[in-house]
Amino acid sequence: MLELEERIRQQGTVKPGNVLKVDAFLNHQCDVALFDAMGAAWAEHFQGKPITKILTIEASGIGIACVAARHFDNVPVVFAKKAQSINLDGEQYVTQVYSFTKQREFPVIVAKKFLSADDHVLIIDDFLANGKALQGLIELCEDAGATVEGIGIAIEKGFQGGGDRLREAGFDLDSLAIVESMDADNGTVTFRH
Amino acid sequence: MLELEERIRQQGTVKPGNVLKVDAFLNHQCDVALFDAMGAAWAEHFQGKPITKILTIEASGIGIACVAARHFDNVPVVFAKKAQSINLDGEQYVTQVYSFTKQREFPVIVAKKFLSADDHVLIIDDFLANGKALQGLIELCEDAGATVEGIGIAIEKGFQGGGDRLREAGFDLDSLAIVESMDADNGTVTFRH
Repeated sequence: MLELEERIRQQGTVKPGNVLKVDAFLNHQCDVALFDAMGAAWAEHFQGKPITKILTIEASGIGIACVAARHFDNVPVVFAKKAQSINLDGEQYVTQVYSFTKQREFPVIVAKKFLSADDHVLIIDDFLANGKALQGLIELCEDAGATVEGIGIAIEKGFQGGGDRLREAGFDLDSLAIVESMDADNGTVTFRH
Repeated sequence: MLELEERIRQQGTVKPGNVLKVDAFLNHQCDVALFDAMGAAWAEHFQGKPITKILTIEASGIGIACVAARHFDNVPVVFAKKAQSINLDGEQYVTQVYSFTKQREFPVIVAKKFLSADDHVLIIDDFLANGKALQGLIELCEDAGATVEGIGIAIEKGFQGGGDRLREAGFDLDSLAIVESMDADNGTVTFRH
């Protein structure tokens, strides 16, 4: 998606350790017009799939998923939680995910009443690197017997391999910008096309 | 807002300890058509105010704020973070907020580059009870020299007093449903009108 690539070039910052900061428009400050265009792009890609629910994970995925849902007949968005809380009760699907960013495991939790074998799920998230968080969401869908119809990602770090493993496993993965390489010294980002 | 009150009556659950669970449509599963109607209601209430930015806090406020922003000329949404992360760098506005739910203090953080003295801010959040989290967001705006033009809340627990304190302090607070009382024994909710 050219518009997203342009924004990454203009407003993204490459930091040492393969960190791509896009907090100006994606995951701290949010450009909702861009989110809307992203939703339209996914709606075109996943056209014809009988999607009944969008699944994402807190926090950065939520805004993107909610704006994108407007392009999918307003299907409900469910966001997985990363911690237990008093607001979570009843039976839950839970899995553990290792975060390289945080250097620790965290739980990924969805209440059972919001994910079922009748659901045809589109998973949406802001970033895909090694794919651990996404794998957690896929596991929850499998536990529920739900069908994963597709995965919509804003920015995939192609060089970390998580996206290609999902494609090889047969998932219909639509990443709107795939970073092939990036260079912290001169701040450049190269995209896969 | 009648539509929101109806949903609370139909799908909300009252739990002991003044807990109102609305995870079926507001803060775990999200009804984005309802969020859109909420955004339209706030746009009507805050009509004429020169809003340049919507400020919310992770996680449950993000979806509501992003969908609502579509009704405010797509102004940027900034969501305050509740923890430090490697994705936060540069100078920050930070304050500490006490959470009765979690029984501990947590930080409320916004990068300085996303909030300035030029900003006219609409604060949006899903819940207002004692108002501690909201007070934290207001403090960050004050630190930045930004103008708080208004506060849009989905559900205010009127009996906890946080909303009335903000109104007395002169804030233009628009809560779409104000719970006057609730009863865990028979599951009833009474609204203020």
